[in-house]
Amino acid sequence: MVRNLLFTIEYDGSDFYGWQRQPNVPTVQGVLEEVLSKICNMPIAIHGTSRTDAGVHALGQRASFSGDFGIPTDRILFATNNMLPPSICITAVEEVPADFHARFNAKGKTYRYKIKNTSKRNVFDRNYVYYVAAPLKVEAMAEAAEHLVGTHDFKCFQATGGPEKTTTVRTITEMKVQQDGDEITIDVTGDGFLYNMVRIIVGTLVQVGLGKISPNQIPGIIQSKDRSKAGQTAPPQGLYLVQVHYEDLKK
Amino acid sequence: MVRNLLFTIEYDGSDFYGWQRQPNVPTVQGVLEEVLSKICNMPIAIHGTSRTDAGVHALGQRASFSGDFGIPTDRILFATNNMLPPSICITAVEEVPADFHARFNAKGKTYRYKIKNTSKRNVFDRNYVYYVAAPLKVEAMAEAAEHLVGTHDFKCFQATGGPEKTTTVRTITEMKVQQDGDEITIDVTGDGFLYNMVRIIVGTLVQVGLGKISPNQIPGIIQSKDRSKAGQTAPPQGLYLVQVHYEDLKK
Repeated sequence: MVRNLLFTIEYDGSDFYGWQRQPNVPTVQGVLEEVLSKICNMPIAIHGTSRTDAGVHALGQRASFSGDFGIPTDRILFATNNMLPPSICITAVEEVPADFHARFNAKGKTYRYKIKNTSKRNVFDRNYVYYVAAPLKVEAMAEAAEHLVGTHDFKCFQATGGPEKTTTVRTITEMKVQQDGDEITIDVTGDGFLYNMVRIIVGTLVQVGLGKISPNQIPGIIQSKDRSKAGQTAPPQGLYLVQVHYEDLKK
Repeated sequence: MVRNLLFTIEYDGSDFYGWQRQPNVPTVQGVLEEVLSKICNMPIAIHGTSRTDAGVHALGQRASFSGDFGIPTDRILFATNNMLPPSICITAVEEVPADFHARFNAKGKTYRYKIKNTSKRNVFDRNYVYYVAAPLKVEAMAEAAEHLVGTHDFKCFQATGGPEKTTTVRTITEMKVQQDGDEITIDVTGDGFLYNMVRIIVGTLVQVGLGKISPNQIPGIIQSKDRSKAGQTAPPQGLYLVQVHYEDLKK
């Protein structure tokens, strides 16, 4: 009987050329499909929710795939983790309806971005945070973030050269900017994101934190729809896909 | 004028085949010598305190080197860090007397070993801790550690196949076993260590934590001088060289 399964996946993006399958380089999707095809003894193609870039991490990426494979659902998590490299871990598996698709059914996603605001780097964090040496005004960053919440045309926060979208209107439902010692975390939840949108938002908030953009300039930047008015794209290694939101599932 | 310099070095051992220079593979010493030779415009050979194994990290490795190089001492730290890969960082440099040698002048070293005692792994820690899933009795481990403090023949904690030592007597001056949530840290300070000694001590303490060896069996294991009585060698990625102790220097 054909089953449709949904994985929750954690991975360290440092080891991969991003999520999406590519020839001759290790990608998360490529490694997962290779392992699943062996376990299920048939070619398996998986559909991930988010095509994370090289260096971007995931705590809760989702991917669905279906087939008439022999292995029971409650065995597949252990079998898969047993064959995966230690930089990828399946944290949950569930059976979903036949027409469920990890990407098309997603109602939203939450990303987290980690900044370390210190001039004293340590070598162990280099793949997991964005180091900013100059002191950042976190309150100003939080104030600027409030202007981004809502339904806007986020064209100025879209990387040039990415896939063409029919619309660049998106809804950000929540933003949180928090500080804990020298670590600043920025959580963004929205119904969908343009190419590099979270990283450009973070780059813009860093400009605010440095005092180069004031929080009340943000609405004008949004209205300009001009990529050059927003900040630089923050580097990939600070970004984590935290959670994918579905309407019909428990989480 | 010939100067003799002493570096303090932090590195992430995951990226290297250990400290010691080897042909055709990246090692910390090899990378440092290559960079310093360029900066100083002459061949530089450095003497590290500890030949850490592949995967072992350092917060405070030391290395000395001398030469009649042009660059001022206060410029060399910045210049070196600028050319090093982000997995190695020079944290301090100081001028030392001409006869000072980072290894031969060391009076002792402190190592730290990090265990995560949980069945719930996360992919980001895989190169930085030793995961132990079964619950460990930390009090028993601390009690066992007390038996190791002092001057003993530590032959049973020496890896076979390592370099022959004239004596296997060493002095451990301090051991600390601490728990913080699911993280257990074991700090060991001593005047010198046999090959893999810290990792075999940790492997033995894990056996104690699992209840397979009782703390009061430790003196008998030491007296046996029999490697097979001690625990397995704990994996390299949990081990950090924290500090090297010198008599005549500030730190």
